[in-house]
This record gives sequence, structure tokens and C-alpha cells, in this order.
Amino acid sequence: MLNRVRSAVAHLVSSGGAPPPRPKSPDLPNSTSAPPAAPPQAPRSPPARAGSGSAAPARTVEARASFCRPTFLQLSPGGLRRADDHAGRAVQSPPDTGRRLPWSTGYAEVINSGKSRHNEDQACCEVVYVEGRRSVSGAPREPSRGQSCWSSQKEVTHESLVVGAIENAFQFMDEQMARERHGHQVEGGCCALVVVYLLGKVYVANAGDSRAIIVRNGEIIPMSREFTPETERQRLQMLGFLKPELLGGEFTHLEFPRRVQPKELGQRMLYRDQNMTGWAYKKIELEDLRFPLVCGEGKKARMMATIGVTRGLGDHNLRVCSSTLPIKPFLSSFPEVRVYDLTQYEHCPDDVLVLGTDGLWDVTSDCEVAATVDRVLSAYEPNDPSRYTALAQALVLGARGTPRDRGWRLPNNKLGSGDDISVFVIPLGGPGSYS
Amino acid sequence: MLNRVRSAVAHLVSSGGAPPPRPKSPDLPNSTSAPPAAPPQAPRSPPARAGSGSAAPARTVEARASFCRPTFLQLSPGGLRRADDHAGRAVQSPPDTGRRLPWSTGYAEVINSGKSRHNEDQACCEVVYVEGRRSVSGAPREPSRGQSCWSSQKEVTHESLVVGAIENAFQFMDEQMARERHGHQVEGGCCALVVVYLLGKVYVANAGDSRAIIVRNGEIIPMSREFTPETERQRLQMLGFLKPELLGGEFTHLEFPRRVQPKELGQRMLYRDQNMTGWAYKKIELEDLRFPLVCGEGKKARMMATIGVTRGLGDHNLRVCSSTLPIKPFLSSFPEVRVYDLTQYEHCPDDVLVLGTDGLWDVTSDCEVAATVDRVLSAYEPNDPSRYTALAQALVLGARGTPRDRGWRLPNNKLGSGDDISVFVIPLGGPGSYS
Repeated sequence: MLNRVRSAVAHLVSSGGAPPPRPKSPDLPNSTSAPPAAPPQAPRSPPARAGSGSAAPARTVEARASFCRPTFLQLSPGGLRRADDHAGRAVQSPPDTGRRLPWSTGYAEVINSGKSRHNEDQACCEVVYVEGRRSVSGAPREPSRGQSCWSSQKEVTHESLVVGAIENAFQFMDEQMARERHGHQVEGGCCALVVVYLLGKVYVANAGDSRAIIVRNGEIIPMSREFTPETERQRLQMLGFLKPELLGGEFTHLEFPRRVQPKELGQRMLYRDQNMTGWAYKKIELEDLRFPLVCGEGKKARMMATIGVTRGLGDHNLRVCSSTLPIKPFLSSFPEVRVYDLTQYEHCPDDVLVLGTDGLWDVTSDCEVAATVDRVLSAYEPNDPSRYTALAQALVLGARGTPRDRGWRLPNNKLGSGDDISVFVIPLGGPGSYS
Repeated sequence: MLNRVRSAVAHLVSSGGAPPPRPKSPDLPNSTSAPPAAPPQAPRSPPARAGSGSAAPARTVEARASFCRPTFLQLSPGGLRRADDHAGRAVQSPPDTGRRLPWSTGYAEVINSGKSRHNEDQACCEVVYVEGRRSVSGAPREPSRGQSCWSSQKEVTHESLVVGAIENAFQFMDEQMARERHGHQVEGGCCALVVVYLLGKVYVANAGDSRAIIVRNGEIIPMSREFTPETERQRLQMLGFLKPELLGGEFTHLEFPRRVQPKELGQRMLYRDQNMTGWAYKKIELEDLRFPLVCGEGKKARMMATIGVTRGLGDHNLRVCSSTLPIKPFLSSFPEVRVYDLTQYEHCPDDVLVLGTDGLWDVTSDCEVAATVDRVLSAYEPNDPSRYTALAQALVLGARGTPRDRGWRLPNNKLGSGDDISVFVIPLGGPGSYS
């Protein structure tokens, strides 16, 4: 995935779409550009066999599909076994003795409590180099004449070129996974959350149910939203309405507040269609007895009674439970990209961008994360580069809890997350930051 | 249109979806419920023959299709001629001597400077009565068992029932116009902006390019957004992508920053598809030479090179210029409904909800409206009920300008709006208000 983004951004910069990159990172005086990508990737339900979407060209598909942890954790075979232990659930971070992640970015992860054999989250964090060229080919420059609505050329900003490059990187990655699945038995799919820093701006691209927030002077700035059957209801219903053949006669694109019973035929029932945000009444017809395309709420929300996340990569072979109906046509590989201009604000070392997989957010609110940011960072000197790793560890521990009463429990005695949990903490104004 | 909303809300209340209504308006002690509707409706481009979408059952289709102004203006035949005078463009408001609009709502309108024979905006404002019954039929009450995602019944709030009723009222109105066009030669279409007050909440429903904002203690709260080929680009492109037959081989669903020339075949060009918010490069193919489904910017933005507003009512017979390709499949009659809870804030007499047709917003920003609200209302006593009409008149005058230099000019010498202009000012905490 990182390579796809790197390649797309490199392609963009080299084609003259963006201005020649300037060195930005004081940490990295050799870099001619600094688009890092830090994508925690979590498998979608149903569990995937291969959670990693990384695509390093030097490795074969088989190697990629085998279990590994992020390279920057520098795990020995023994360390890998400990990281893979569902009973101990030891929190993993890059070693203090090793090379720090760029900008002192903090990272921590923990494996699930047994729901799948391996930790299916995957992560990487890199500074990549792209060379700027001044040659321009195919870039539209002159306004053309013709119809009145074409009187001038639409302005295309550098920012929208980066956004487009990231959007296409997601799509190309998904297509690559479609090609490689043949003959390699690579099944499953994953969601992806990618952060790119380029020329003073942070781009956060999300497809799935991971989440990114900025905590700035205690204020929370959402940098992503989750894509689930609930948040994507209207897109999914519209697709089912326009392409009813995709529902295979098994599903209805309408939503009802509960399952319609055959005996209710002809009665009035509340419903929502692809155009509605409110509810209204309709008379129940035979087609309404089919299973609804979208049903359930919260973590139990499902599309086609099968999947709880509606954007991401892979899952090309996924079928409806006990059916041959393909689910992929309803899944989107396109991320929503949000842009944050780092130059619009004077950031302090306590301002951070926090990325987490669903294992974190299932049991932790944005406000709780902000409180942990405040509590942990204030316990460290502002220029101590280890504070962001400590924060990532605290967030993972806070979501995992401690083993007690036959389960992992939080201090309030509620259940902790039994899922894989991965957290990046990227400082926006800390030691060795870009500004 | 008002009757559709009234009927939908009455249906909703009488079916037990919402609690029995209570009297709310001190002005109107006899009301058992107070859902007023104040819909300024403006015709869409291309100009419509019949701008009025009101559907009073006592009038025939022919009478409805003939030119009229809002009943509450109480225009004499002479007054109607003056209101219809493109040279004078006299501002019209309800007479001071007549019965005030509910809650001292202010209203003003002015005809266009000659672009169409009549004022094609239309408006009404009424208190309607719906009787609450306690009988409940078909309302789902008991949770059902079955699949895990159906473990409980989805909660349906009263608010979402009102939203659904309004959404369906728009759809039914559009279907009614489709039925009535046959044999009655009623062509054209219009956008619609509707405000409903019910049980402490204000519902603002918009389909088209009118706009509603709340100005509260100087702060601007947008209560609608416009639906144009630009704001609806992705919905329109998705439809063209999923149903290419709707493009008739004449249009491409892709967007380009300028018209692609035949000589550019095989070259690289920036584009956006239905999934993208950014721009990326593609190689130009033969299909890309077709006219784009969406093109142009701002007021010049067009869908299928024909229409500049993509939601509203009617236009069932509209075709692409010099073609037989129907446009209606791309138009949506569904509004976006925003809800404002009046009880969450202590409103003062200077807090208002301003509704305006595109004639106002083409030349007036939200901030300029807020400044006019402050300037005009502070010149009147807080309990003077005429202040809201004075404000509506000031807003219309400010958008129309004065005749000078062969045109209607604003004080800054820019062109005023040559379009029809209609403005409602609804006080949120003024004399005779609901709270």
C-alpha cells in the first residue's frame, strides 16, 4: 500500500502536477521530499487470512501473505513469538535502542485475545523520496473555446492532485490484489488508513473502520470517518436500487426497523429508501420480506448479513453467507481524504495526530484519547522523543485492559478490546517535527 | 406543496408516529398543532412556464398554472400589474393594514428585470391544524428474534418521522406533477424550500438552489445547502456510471478541467470520476471526447449542458438541448432536511431564520445578510412586529439595487440581481413567536 502511495505521489511530482518538492524535515537533511505513510491496516470482518496489504516489490506474494509484524519493531524470532501470544498480549513498540521512527512518531500494538491466530493489523512508517522534474507533459494549460460553460479551464490545485494521487493509489492497490489472488490463494481483505505529509500539508486517507484524530491544545479535530453499513447506508441502497441484479433476489434495498414477518403482508411498516434520512410508512409487499441489504446497529450492523465494514481493499472473492452472491460490488476501495494544513497553526509538542485501528476505538472515545494525550505527555519533558511511544503504549494498554474475571477488563470493569489494537502517535510540533 | 407537507404531517400525527400535538403558539390559541410551511419556490433553469408548486385542492390545474402572487400579499388587479412591472420592480410585502403572517414573519419580493414575463418565485405561509389520535396501526413495537443483527428493533425518533414525512411529501408532489402534466400542458419545474415548525423544532427542507440561514446573536448557522451540478457531481457521475444508457452515447460521466479535443487522443489529461474528489491523469480515449455530464463552474455549471439545478420538482419532460435525451432521471426530488431545536437556546427578538431564493443569494453573502439583520432590526423596537417585514424588504432591495448606468446597480456599482427575488424572515424569539 505504501508503495502504491509512494508511486502515485512520485508520478504526480515528476509529471509537473505539483511544484518541485523542497526539503522540509530537519531530521532528514538528505530528503528532497518527505511523504511518509503510516497506514495501520486492520482486517475486515469476516476475518481475513492475510491482513497485510503492503506491497514491497522485493518480496514475493507468498512471502507477503505469510505472517509478519512491522519491520520497525525489529522483532527477533523469540520476540515474534511473544508478540503472537494471545494469553500474555504483550504491548509491542519499536526498541528504545533502535532507530526512531521519523519525527519521533510513537507506535504500539497488541495482538487479539484469541479471535484469530495472528495479529491481523499491519503497519509501516517511512520517509520516501521523490524527485521533482520540471518537464510537463499532458498538463492542460490553455483555456479552450466552445460551449459557454467551458469558457475557462477549471482550476486544479496542487492539493487536489495529491488527493487524486492517493485516491488512485487505493484503487490500484485493490486492482493489484485482484490480480494476485489468482494462483496465490490470497483471500480476505483489509481496511486502510494512510497519512501522507507533503509540502506543509498532512493528508489523511481512510477506507474502513480505523480512525484518525488530531488532538491540538486539548481540542479534538476528526481527520476521518468510519465506513460501515450504517454510515454508507444510502450509497449501498442506491447501488441495490439501480442494480437490482446485485441483490440476487435475496435482498431488498429497503431498510426496516426490524425484520418483516410474512404475516405482516399488506400491513403498514416504517421504512427508509436510498433517498431518505427519515422514516415513513409503506404497505408491506412480497419483496419486502427479503432480507434487507443493510441491517443492525453499531458493531452489529451488517451489509448482506455478512460484512460490517464497507470500504477497504481486497475481499474480491467474498460471498454472502450460505450463498454464491458476491459482496465485492458493494465494497468501495476509495478513501475519504482529509487535508490538514500544518502551516495554519503554531503547533506545540503536545499536539498530535493519533491513528488507531478499530480495536482502539471500540472501547475508547475521542475524548478519552484526548485525556490520555494530556495525562501522558505532561509527564514527559517536551523534548523527550520517547514520549510519543509512551503515549501510544498507554492508549493500547487503556484499550486492552488487564486480565481479570475471565477476560480483559478496563479499570471501570467493562470489557477491554479483545481485538488487535494498533496505534500511531505522530507529533505535529514535537522534537524533530517537520515545522 | 404546502398541502403535501400538511397532509404528510397530518398523516404522521394521526397514525400515532408522533406524540399528540400540544398548542404552542400564543398567537394562535385555537391551534392543536402548528406546522407552518413557508416555501419560496424558484423556477429552475431553463425557465418554467408554471413556477407555482402549490396544490390547493379547491383550484383546478388550469387555475394553478395561471400567473398569481401569494395570497397573503392581498394584491388588487392594479397591484398585481405593478408587481408584474419589470421596469419599476416595486418591492411587494403584505399590507400593514392586513392580517400579519404567523409569528410576525416578514416577507418581501420583487420581479425580475425582464428575463421572464412573470415572477416565477412563489410563496405561501400558513398555520395548519392536524388532529392527534392515539390509535396506533402498523407501528412496530415488539423486537423480533432471528439473525443476530436483528437482536433489537432500531429506534425511530419522532424527529426522524417528521423528516421522513417531509421527504415523502416532496416525492409525492413530484409524482403529482408528473400525473397532472398529461393533458394540461404544464411544463417546467421548480426548486422548493420548506420550513415546518412542529413541537419545538424547526425543520428546513431544501431541494434546489434557494437557501436558508439562521442569524443568531450575529452568528450564522447554515440551514440548507444548494444542489447544483457542482455540489452533486459525484451523485450524478455515479448514476451515469451505473446506468450508462442514461447518457445516450452523447455524454461521458467523467469530468475534465476543460473540453477534450479530438487531437488529444492518446495524450494524458486530468480527470475526476464518481469516486474521486481529487484529480488524476488518464490517457484520453475515444469515449472521453463525448460531452461531459457535468461541466462549468459557479452559476455557469451545467448538467448535460442544460440545467444548473439538480434537485427540485417537475421538469418531467425536460430534454437535453437539441436532443431527445431525457434529463429527469438525473434530477432528484428529495430534499435535504435539517433540524433546529428551538428549545436548546434562549432566543432574542433579533434572532431570525432567513429564507431566500437564488435571486437574493446570487449577489448577497451570508455575512452581508447578517449585517443587514443587525442594521435593520436595531433601528426598530424589539416588540415592533413590522421590523421583520422591513428587514425582508431591505434584503430584497439590497439584492435588487437601483436603476443606474443601464442596469440595476448595487451601491458598490456591481450589478444587482436581475432575477426574481423572494425573502422570508421568520423571527425565532420575537413578538408572537412560538417560545
